Parts: sequence; C-alpha cells; structure tokens
Amino acid sequence: MNIVPIINTNDAVVPPPEPNSDLQGVISIKDNDSLAARLAVEMKADLIIVLSDVEGLFDSPPGSDDAKLIDIFYPGDQQSVTFGTKSRVGMGGMEAKVKAALWALQGGTSVVIANGTHPKISGHVITDIVEGKKVGTFFSEVKPAGPTVEQQAEMARSGGRSLAALQPEQRAEIIYHLADLLTDNRDEILSANKKDMEEAEEKGRLAPPLLKRLSLSTAKLNSLAIGLRQIAASSQDSVGRVLRRTRIAKELELEQVTVPIGVLLVIFESRPDCLPQVSALAISSGNGLLLKGGKEASNSNQILYRLTQEALALHGVKDAVQLVNTREEVEDLCRLNKLIDLIIPRGSSQLVRDIQKAAKGIPVMGHSEGICHVYVDSEASVDKVTRIVRDSKCEYPAACNAMETLLIHRDILRTPLFDQIIDMLRVEQVKIHAGPKFASYLTFSPSEVKSLRTEYGDLECCIEVVDGVQDAIDHIHKYGSSHTDAIITDNEVTAEYFLQHVDSACVFWNTSTRFSDGYRFGLGAEVGISTARIHARGPVGIEGLLTTKWLLRGDNHVVSDFSEQGSMKYLHENLPVPHRNIS
Amino acid sequence: MNIVPIINTNDAVVPPPEPNSDLQGVISIKDNDSLAARLAVEMKADLIIVLSDVEGLFDSPPGSDDAKLIDIFYPGDQQSVTFGTKSRVGMGGMEAKVKAALWALQGGTSVVIANGTHPKISGHVITDIVEGKKVGTFFSEVKPAGPTVEQQAEMARSGGRSLAALQPEQRAEIIYHLADLLTDNRDEILSANKKDMEEAEEKGRLAPPLLKRLSLSTAKLNSLAIGLRQIAASSQDSVGRVLRRTRIAKELELEQVTVPIGVLLVIFESRPDCLPQVSALAISSGNGLLLKGGKEASNSNQILYRLTQEALALHGVKDAVQLVNTREEVEDLCRLNKLIDLIIPRGSSQLVRDIQKAAKGIPVMGHSEGICHVYVDSEASVDKVTRIVRDSKCEYPAACNAMETLLIHRDILRTPLFDQIIDMLRVEQVKIHAGPKFASYLTFSPSEVKSLRTEYGDLECCIEVVDGVQDAIDHIHKYGSSHTDAIITDNEVTAEYFLQHVDSACVFWNTSTRFSDGYRFGLGAEVGISTARIHARGPVGIEGLLTTKWLLRGDNHVVSDFSEQGSMKYLHENLPVPHRNIS
Repeated sequence: MNIVPIINTNDAVVPPPEPNSDLQGVISIKDNDSLAARLAVEMKADLIIVLSDVEGLFDSPPGSDDAKLIDIFYPGDQQSVTFGTKSRVGMGGMEAKVKAALWALQGGTSVVIANGTHPKISGHVITDIVEGKKVGTFFSEVKPAGPTVEQQAEMARSGGRSLAALQPEQRAEIIYHLADLLTDNRDEILSANKKDMEEAEEKGRLAPPLLKRLSLSTAKLNSLAIGLRQIAASSQDSVGRVLRRTRIAKELELEQVTVPIGVLLVIFESRPDCLPQVSALAISSGNGLLLKGGKEASNSNQILYRLTQEALALHGVKDAVQLVNTREEVEDLCRLNKLIDLIIPRGSSQLVRDIQKAAKGIPVMGHSEGICHVYVDSEASVDKVTRIVRDSKCEYPAACNAMETLLIHRDILRTPLFDQIIDMLRVEQVKIHAGPKFASYLTFSPSEVKSLRTEYGDLECCIEVVDGVQDAIDHIHKYGSSHTDAIITDNEVTAEYFLQHVDSACVFWNTSTRFSDGYRFGLGAEVGISTARIHARGPVGIEGLLTTKWLLRGDNHVVSDFSEQGSMKYLHENLPVPHRNIS
Repeated sequence: MNIVPIINTNDAVVPPPEPNSDLQGVISIKDNDSLAARLAVEMKADLIIVLSDVEGLFDSPPGSDDAKLIDIFYPGDQQSVTFGTKSRVGMGGMEAKVKAALWALQGGTSVVIANGTHPKISGHVITDIVEGKKVGTFFSEVKPAGPTVEQQAEMARSGGRSLAALQPEQRAEIIYHLADLLTDNRDEILSANKKDMEEAEEKGRLAPPLLKRLSLSTAKLNSLAIGLRQIAASSQDSVGRVLRRTRIAKELELEQVTVPIGVLLVIFESRPDCLPQVSALAISSGNGLLLKGGKEASNSNQILYRLTQEALALHGVKDAVQLVNTREEVEDLCRLNKLIDLIIPRGSSQLVRDIQKAAKGIPVMGHSEGICHVYVDSEASVDKVTRIVRDSKCEYPAACNAMETLLIHRDILRTPLFDQIIDMLRVEQVKIHAGPKFASYLTFSPSEVKSLRTEYGDLECCIEVVDGVQDAIDHIHKYGSSHTDAIITDNEVTAEYFLQHVDSACVFWNTSTRFSDGYRFGLGAEVGISTARIHARGPVGIEGLLTTKWLLRGDNHVVSDFSEQGSMKYLHENLPVPHRNIS
C-alpha cells in the first residue's frame, strides 16, 4: 500500500487558500494539504493520512456543545458540516483539508484526517489507521446503509427511556409476544440457523463445543420460550420499586426507587439463543440494549432480531434494542463510554478478559475465571465427600462453577476416605494434577501442576494438601478467583469460620459448588455470574440491570431553613416501604 | 542526561557468560549486557535502559504462580531473587543482565530493565522511564525506609480482613478512640497543620480556597470528632447484615449478607480532616484502606495517621489503614488493579476526571461534575420560586449540588414572576449568562453562554427558556450531568411526570437542589455523591463501601439430585430477614 502521511507544520510562506478553488480537474496548490493531495493522486497512493491538531472532522466547530466527530465522511454529506475557525497548526484550516481530501478521493486515494499532536501516540495513530481501526475521520465514496453504531446507541438510549416509561404489564406483553413469535416462526429460525451451521462446518473455523453452542433445535427454542415467559411473569416488579422511604422533615419525603441502568452492551459469541434471552432481560428491566453477536451466527441473529423488533413494535419501542453490525470491532464499541453504561460479555473467559481490557471507562459485568475450591476438612463425613466432590467436578466440568482444586486436610491422607476420593476420580476419568505439597507426600506420581491458578474446565483437577481450615482459606485467597468455594465438614464451628472468612462471592457448606447459579439461587433469569466486588456479586438476576434514583417531594423547602439558627429540624424518620415481592 | 539504551538482539557470535566473572573492577565483556555496562560507565552515562522480552526482574521465574515484578532492586537484595531460564531474546539471560546492571551501578550509572518487545509501546517505555515513571525494574543504591506501595496494599488487604473479623462493637471502639485521640492531641495536630500552612503560604502555590481547606482549627477538629462518634454509633449494623434468605430445598438455605468491598484507595487533596474521617468510614465497614494525601498537607497527615494507627492498635489491626508515601504517583496507584478494589477521589472535579482516566480496570466512585438544573414551570407558585432558586444557587455556590442552569417556561417571560427572579439574582450578585434561546428573547443583553454544560461553582448561572416540561427534560438529558435536577410547579401531574422521566441520580419537586447530600438524606456519614450508574448512585452512605456474599448451608446437597429424573425439587421459598435497622 502506498501511504502519504502529512504532518502539518506552520509553513507560513504558503498563501492561504482562496474560497472557490476548483475541486474538479487539477487542484491548485495553495497549502500543504492541496500539495499532499496532488502528490498522492500523482503517485497513485492508496491512502493519505493527514495529521492535524484536532481529532478529525466534526459536524460543528470542535469544542461547541453539540460537536461530534464524524467517523466516516461521505462527499454527499458536505452540507451537514459547519466549519469553525482555522486549526492552530498549519495554514489550511479544516475546510481546506476537506477540499483537498475530497479532491484526492475523486482521484482514487482514500483519506484519513486524525490528531497527530500527542508525540507519544502519533506512532499509534498511524499504525492504528493502517490496521483499519476507527481513528479520526475516514473519507469514503461508499455510504453504507443503516445508522452508525453511535446513532444506534442514541436510539437505544431514547428507546430504552420509552420502554421504561411503559407500564410493567406492557413490558411483560412484549416479552410474551416474543416468546410466541419464537414458537410460531420455528421453521424459519431453524433454517437460518442451518445456514450458519453449514457455513461454519464448511469453513471449519469452529471447534466442536462452539459448533454445539451455535446450533438451535426445536427443544432449545421451546425451553427458550419457557424462559422468556418466566422473565415476563417476573417483570412486574422490577422498575419503579420503592426500596427506602424517609421523612426528612415535615412534608419533605424522600424515596429511593429502582430504575434501569440505561444502555447495556451485550457481546455474545456463537449462541444465537442469547439474543432473545438478553433482549427479554433488557425489556423487563427497561434498559436500552446494543447487541453484538458473532459473525458465525449472523443468519440466526438476523431472524431472531427481526422477531424481537416485531415484539417491541407492539408498544412502539422498536428502537430500544439494536443489533450492531457484525463489521463493528468490539474494541471500538468498548470505547463508547459516553453512550454505554454497562458491558456484559457472554462467552468464554478469554472474551471477558479481552473486554475488561478493552473497556475504557465502562464497567464490565462478568466473571473472567471460575477457579473454585472444595476443602475436605478432617471432620468431613465419608458419605458426603465423594458425592459432593463428584458433583462439583464431574456433573458439568466446563461450567465456571465446577471445582478446579480439591484441598484435602493433611490428616485424611492415607486414610480409607482418601482412597475413596481417588478411586471415585479415577472411575470418573478425572485427570489429577498434584499441587507441590501433595506431590511431596506421594510415592505414585501424577503430573505436578504448572500453576495452582488453573481453570481446567474439563475432567481434570488439582489436588493440594493443607494443614487445616486456615491454611485452606489462605490457599483460596492466594490462588482462587473469588467465585465459589465450599467446605465439607461436620464441625459447625469450622464450617462457620470458613463461611465467614472466605472472601468469595459464594461460600458453601456441605453442598456442591454447582449450586452457584441464578436459577438455582431462585433469582429468576440469570444475567450472569459476577466476580466483580461492586454493584453485583455472584449470580446476578434482573436486579443487576437496575440502579436507583432518589425522589424528593417537598413544599417550598430550602436548606438554609435547617441551619443552626433556622426554623426547621431534620427528622430522618424511616417510613414503611411497600411490600417487596421477591419472586 | 546521558542515556544508553540497549535493545537485545540475538547476537550469537558473543560467547555466553561464565558463572563467576568479576563484578569488582573491570567487567569482562562477554555479551552485549556487559558491553553496554562497560560502555555506559566509561562514558559516564546517568542511565542505561536495558530492553528485554520480560517486564523486568521478578523475584521468582516469570510465569510461576508467585512471581512478582521487582520495581526497585537494591544490591543487598540479590539473595531474594531466583533466576529462571534464559530470556528468549539475547544471550545474556536475566542473571547476566543483573550482574552487568550491578557493575554499572557501582560505576555510577543507574539501570532500568524493561520490556521492549511490543513495537508499538517501546517508544512509550523509553519516554516513560526518562520521565521517571514506574516501568520495569530500577536498580538503586539507596533503599528507602518502609514498605513499597504493593506491600502496603497487601497489608491493607490482610489488615482489612482482620478488621472485618472483629465484632462490630470492637470496630466502633476503635473509631470512638480515634475521636478521643483527636481531641486529646489537638495542640500537636494544630501545630503540624500550622507548619503546612506556613510552607504553603511561603511557596505561594495554593489558591485561597485550597489554603482554606488545608487549614485546621479547634472548631473543625471538634466537629470532626462529633462526626466520627456518629460513624462509630452507626457502625453496629453494616457488615454481616442479612439482606435476603431463601430456602432452596429442604435443609438447603441461602443467605445474602453484606461484606466489605476489600481494599479502598482514597485520594484526597489539601483537606487533612479527610484522613480520620475516611479512616473511620473504612473501619466501620471493615475495609482495608490506602490513603494518598497531597504533599501540601504532609505534616498534618503524618500526625493524623499516627493517631489513626494508635486507635487501630486497640484491637491489633494497625495494618488495615496505610498512608501511602507522598512520592508515589497517583497514576501508578491507579494501575494496581489486582490489589485495589475501589478508588474514591475526594477533591475537585478535575481530580475525579484525572483519576477516572488513569484508573486501569479499577472502579472509581465519585462525581466529576454537578451541572444541576432548576426548572420553573408555568404553574410554579410565586412564593416558592425565588426562595428555592436563591437557596439552590446562592446558599453555597461552590457545592456540586448548587444550581448551574435555571430553565424557565416560556410563558413566564415578561411576567412579574420573571422580574422577581431577575431582581433576586441581581440582589444576590449572581452573574447571569443567557442560553441561546433566552438571548433571542432579550432586549437587554447579559453575556451569552459559551456552553450549556458549564459548572460555574460560583455566583454565576445560565438562564435558558424552554417550551414546557418535556423540553426541560430534553435539555437536562442533553446538557446535564445526571446529578440533581428540580422542578418548581404546583401542578402535581407535571411534577410526577418530571420525577419519573428525568434520568438523574436525584430528582426533586419544590425543594432546593442543595438537599442532595448524604447527611441531609439521613444516610449518616457521607462517602460521597456518585454520578455513576452502577453500584451506588447519588449521595452514598456507608453502604457504598459494602458488597455482598452468598452463603449456602446444606446437608450433602448435589445438583444432580435436582435433574428432571432426580429426587429433589427446588422450593425457592423466601424466608424472613432479620429486621433491618436503617439508622
């Protein structure tokens, strides 16, 4: 690729551009912008990068209240731009740059105008542009159909507000309708999904577990519809619930009520069933939603999105849910911190980690790792140990709440219980990795662990020996991921010590780690499991998609009346809260 | 400064180093590391930058579970390092690099070993190092007294856990004791503060409002002690409160309880009274705390920190609160995402914005802006308008909850009410800026606003005209900061419409915006006001420093028993929650 980078310098000898220079034909060279455009076209460059002291081309003068950076500028849009004062760097000003850019575009050279004034990141800017990332303003001849992702986010914001303003019954109706549409349009959905499956198999890009997640079936659609009806049924009491009421003073009453968070971005891989499910959760909680699915499921996602739109149209709130074009880069979406309030990745640990890294100033809800422990205490009863360990590891080893490390009290080594555990794991074909302390006790030798922080996600686990409950807790704090950790013991004091002191989202006594799940916890639909420490922790129900606002109703109250010499006193009296219906 | 950068290349012609080469005197040149060290010392370079393919020197082989990057390496510490296998780049291996580095250090040249393999950020690495940022491993002759900030964060984590394990009464005792210590040591505190004030005045660095915030007085200390005793009194019921109980199945009970968040980093400017207040909040909520105060208050902070330590020693939990050395850069602290769970900046909007930008993967709680609106509806009653607008703007104009923009219904223009508002603002010496629509109505002409998003923080405000309640709401959504917005009207339907539709943390009817405050809301001690949309929103009490965990107590329960063919059924029965005492 031929690239002509132009860095503006204050080349004062070049005369300023005249207002009506000729764009067609030969461009008059009046400044370095026109010079560069001419040169680039002459040498048939593919791209000119024009580095200025502003981020790119704005639709109004940069710095004004409404100014927005234009990501892609199409020649036909020229009228929509108001030019401001000239750039402080260079003579051309933005208008001259745009003229030069349009001329170059006509000549077959693409143009990017971007900010080059941060010496440390200019290197980045150029490589980012060459890699096709969204930087500055790109000049293009071809205008794609449909809105930009920024426009979609704004539509989701206002659509979400309309959704939140509906009656709870109306939101429920939309979700019920969506459930019906899934059943009624089963054949069309399955045939779109078949197309995705065939393409994926042809290209051989997807691993078998991903292929399995990509595929839809009548059974999957039926259980999806059942889940949606549950969400609809429980959506009556989510938005607008009063959590707290306080009489601040006579005729001054404060209320804290639940409200939607705003605009959610949900990024999901493979599983097209995510689309209606997540949409239902957003509808139920009155949130605007941006959906970003994987390219591999695009046919399935298109039809499911169309049905979601049809359901939303029931109450005129189609804008609330937006499917983002598959070409949009996840990384670019994660930068829209003024437009998106919360990102929820639904997929592999790697996806979550990538998004946590990419998210610039937007909170991310999700667990990147589930390194769950089961600690077998010296006072564990024999009948519980094999049952709970088997369920924790073998019932569904790919789940994030499956056990990865088995901690065994030293006193159990070389007892019949220990042999039973090992036998059970062998029968279940679980590959054992020995922690360093366990390895030192062994005469037989399973492979030693590479790291005590491994999430196997398969029929494999690590076994390590600990000196007692405190040592187990220390191990969990050092190597765990604060997801779910369990103790097996018949000593209640030891159990309570473990429950109180283990600093994880879920801490269990004499139960399988696999109970760590929104549905099993009775939270209704599960939004996800969060290992974050703020907002929501552990299995998250629809409440994780809500925040609160404070409403204060007064009658001419001012704070100066409450000063020491004032006429008013704070009462701060708790008022009864309407009964909260936990479904 | 003379700097010798070395970028490792696979220079296979250089023979590998011998194990016992002489560090003293002349170094034998066996690889490019020793060559560089020799050259740098010969030319009296101030610094060698050695770029490798690892982040720097680790205390164990990089990649192993316990490996930690050493920020500053002191020659005496050599024994504490375990060298791993050789670097894939270059011949030297880390041991050879360290030898060369130590030799250079003896010769008077400082050394930094850092990662140079990411082509895009290598430029950064070198400039960052030259600017003295914490990158890679710095070799230094002088070992500073005291722990590193990473060690302090770990001490705060384990100290916080000890604090959380205390009885609520014990945490309260520590806070009461701290309150007493503040009163008992008043003279010493005030004399330390006087020293800070004198130094600040001498240097003339601080603006008068900052000087005012820096100064302590007997009155300030007394009200601080009163505040601390309130926090102590209300701390009985914060940690370990049961929020929700569910019977999942027979003998399988789930409990959601409040727990501390973990380790908080509080960054504060000027105001040394922040130190004991924030410490009391952290102690009450069982959180570990890193405190980072401004250099200008270092004498005051030192004595206040000593007293906090003395109070914590009452129950052996001194480690829970750590004062971070004033030399540590805020930016470096904001990168410690594995050690810090929440950052709370206490200071100017600029500080909050800077920290929001710097925080890498750590949530930040705080409001960066308070652009609050009062909307005067066409049905507002005359007696309320001037009172509420005066209180909202003039009572304390520097507060974040003060009004910045007054929205006036078009029908009020040129009525006696309008004249009253303008007269009141003139009497109070409030400078008026006209919004574009208001300006077009005016014959007289106050200065037109530069931006409708301005936070004046002074006796200045913007006035804009709107067509009605919907137009007011649209204006607030477009230009506001979602902090606090109020409506003045006697029409209840209009008021409720405003309360339901304005998407801000606090929405008020016929009251001053200044009520938006934790104390006035009856939340007890105020942690801050949050304009974030997740975790905590609006005025935040001690609950903002808490998260939850889920405790599940069973008796040999496994999920496989709950399958379709299984013997168990989910009950999901709500159980009564012990009475919640909102103080």
